Amino acid sequence: MPQLRQDPATREWIIIAAERAKRPHEFRKAAEQKTAAPPPFSPDCPFCPGNETKTPPEIYSLRESTPGKGSAWKVRVVPNKFAALVPEGSLDRRVEAGFFRVMDGFGHHEVVIETPHHDKSLALLSQEEVLDVILTFRLRYHALRKMPGVEAIIIFENHGLSAGTSLEHPHSQIAAIPVIPNRMRTRFESALRYYDDLHHCVYCDMLAKEVQIGERIVEAGDDFVVINPYASIQPFETWIVPTRYRSSFGNISDEDCVQLAAVLRRTLRRLYFGLNNPDYNLIINNAPVADENKKYYLWHIQIIPRLTMRAGFEIGSGIYITTVFPEETAKYLRDYKDEETPEAGNIVAEPRCL
Amino acid sequence: MPQLRQDPATREWIIIAAERAKRPHEFRKAAEQKTAAPPPFSPDCPFCPGNETKTPPEIYSLRESTPGKGSAWKVRVVPNKFAALVPEGSLDRRVEAGFFRVMDGFGHHEVVIETPHHDKSLALLSQEEVLDVILTFRLRYHALRKMPGVEAIIIFENHGLSAGTSLEHPHSQIAAIPVIPNRMRTRFESALRYYDDLHHCVYCDMLAKEVQIGERIVEAGDDFVVINPYASIQPFETWIVPTRYRSSFGNISDEDCVQLAAVLRRTLRRLYFGLNNPDYNLIINNAPVADENKKYYLWHIQIIPRLTMRAGFEIGSGIYITTVFPEETAKYLRDYKDEETPEAGNIVAEPRCL
Repeated sequence: MPQLRQDPATREWIIIAAERAKRPHEFRKAAEQKTAAPPPFSPDCPFCPGNETKTPPEIYSLRESTPGKGSAWKVRVVPNKFAALVPEGSLDRRVEAGFFRVMDGFGHHEVVIETPHHDKSLALLSQEEVLDVILTFRLRYHALRKMPGVEAIIIFENHGLSAGTSLEHPHSQIAAIPVIPNRMRTRFESALRYYDDLHHCVYCDMLAKEVQIGERIVEAGDDFVVINPYASIQPFETWIVPTRYRSSFGNISDEDCVQLAAVLRRTLRRLYFGLNNPDYNLIINNAPVADENKKYYLWHIQIIPRLTMRAGFEIGSGIYITTVFPEETAKYLRDYKDEETPEAGNIVAEPRCL
Repeated sequence: MPQLRQDPATREWIIIAAERAKRPHEFRKAAEQKTAAPPPFSPDCPFCPGNETKTPPEIYSLRESTPGKGSAWKVRVVPNKFAALVPEGSLDRRVEAGFFRVMDGFGHHEVVIETPHHDKSLALLSQEEVLDVILTFRLRYHALRKMPGVEAIIIFENHGLSAGTSLEHPHSQIAAIPVIPNRMRTRFESALRYYDDLHHCVYCDMLAKEVQIGERIVEAGDDFVVINPYASIQPFETWIVPTRYRSSFGNISDEDCVQLAAVLRRTLRRLYFGLNNPDYNLIINNAPVADENKKYYLWHIQIIPRLTMRAGFEIGSGIYITTVFPEETAKYLRDYKDEETPEAGNIVAEPRCL
């Protein structure tokens, strides 16, 4: 029998379709489906070292400080060459034909080149290298939040062709936008309503419950908990949620960055090796810039592997169909280990925000 | 310079990315990309005549009344063999672990086999055959709306592999669900707010404005107007909107069905021949069952050709990026004609609901 589950945070219903249900290992990419490993360097790639002039002028770079290594960059930030939004024009909202609301596509759309190595996606970087990427995210967040007109900052990564990436070289994107999207507003309002009712943060309550139940936990540390959420919209949807209450990623501390680098890397390795390098979208679900310090919201990372296809049912109804129980996928990810990914161990975390 | 446009009905912002902008004809599938035409009959297809036992027991069929033709079916409705929801279990909403809301996946998930011909998608059927499909939709809508627990009925078609269909034989789906999805609630509430403010239906106001402006009109008749909406979420997104105010497709009259068959067929032919048979999702955006007679909502058909990929930006921000102006795609579709698709002619329609 299928099940309808409601996301406690957004009140979004999803279907777990038992008739179509698969076992977690069936989502593992078969050897013959595996894409060929990319080369460590690609002469035509605009993100590879030596090709820096092929990108728009650099906004920021993190560079080697080791003497003798010269000015080799470790992480590079450049404007998106095919920017969806540009820092030009007016921030005024106009009315067209007395009816339609419109404004210039004012905003910032940046690319974070995560590594000079063409073949090393986040899962394959060292912990220090992942930390460099996270510190770059935070630095650009802080720079962009001060820019005129920026209402929200979306940090995301598309990994693999079916996740919508056009360039193989590992990179993320940062979009600073002058409007609040409905999806963000709905998620935020829903959390506010919960707080109005119960005077708790719904994410903190959810974390506490998940830690208590345990079966959807991938790993739980003192600083971050990794779960496959109760109402997962896709198989293996994975959240990384901080246990310290903060509504915005922009408020993350240095120490949190170090812990996040370790947790994010382990989580991506579980997916990479456990499912044979699936394509995925990774999104930092943040508060609007004006709401960075609200008590009722908790920023979190959402990773959505692209293992199934979104079709008319989802588009038409707004209800996602998941074909495997998150309890099973969480166990699958929890059980995965390699030398660098120790087991989750005992679940000891207590959300500290309560 | 890119543009941010707001959908007047949902207040959803979309980006029209000028830097990536294409010309409408660039979306036309190249000859070498065309998939081979399917055979008129496929012996293994569960939806082809003679294979009726390969589907679950028939719910309904529309049959030839011509003497001598026996009981050949024209349209057939069967339960979805891989149903997302089933008419079993309880309608009670339960609380799991004192926190998570859950219910049995109670509902109805039907397949409408639109034609006995394996190779004839809606665009290639005769007007009478399209009418048969629409009448079947209406008949099943009326039957399902009376079933216990049905809160919303979604009628949709996935055409082509990239639209998520698994079977080539032309078919639609009907999902009768026991919850109101957020997306439906948001769209409905937004229309209600507009009505609260202005005492008009936002869809009627939009239609009147579009007819007055003309440039996003594909065709405009007395009964239906076809537009590429101002804030299209994808290139060539196309809406078919009735000019008579009604909140639910279930209230459509016999005469409306005849007109709709003609308009829908013409519209799909414009897409089919104009873009070389693109994959698409078609959705009837309906009111919740309990709100079939509200003054502030207008049911409409939304057709979303799958010409671009939805990636992290859309998933993360909830903002769609469109790479062509709807004014240009509407002109492209408006200008297309064949013997059976006359030009739009003069725009004379006046929404009758005003």
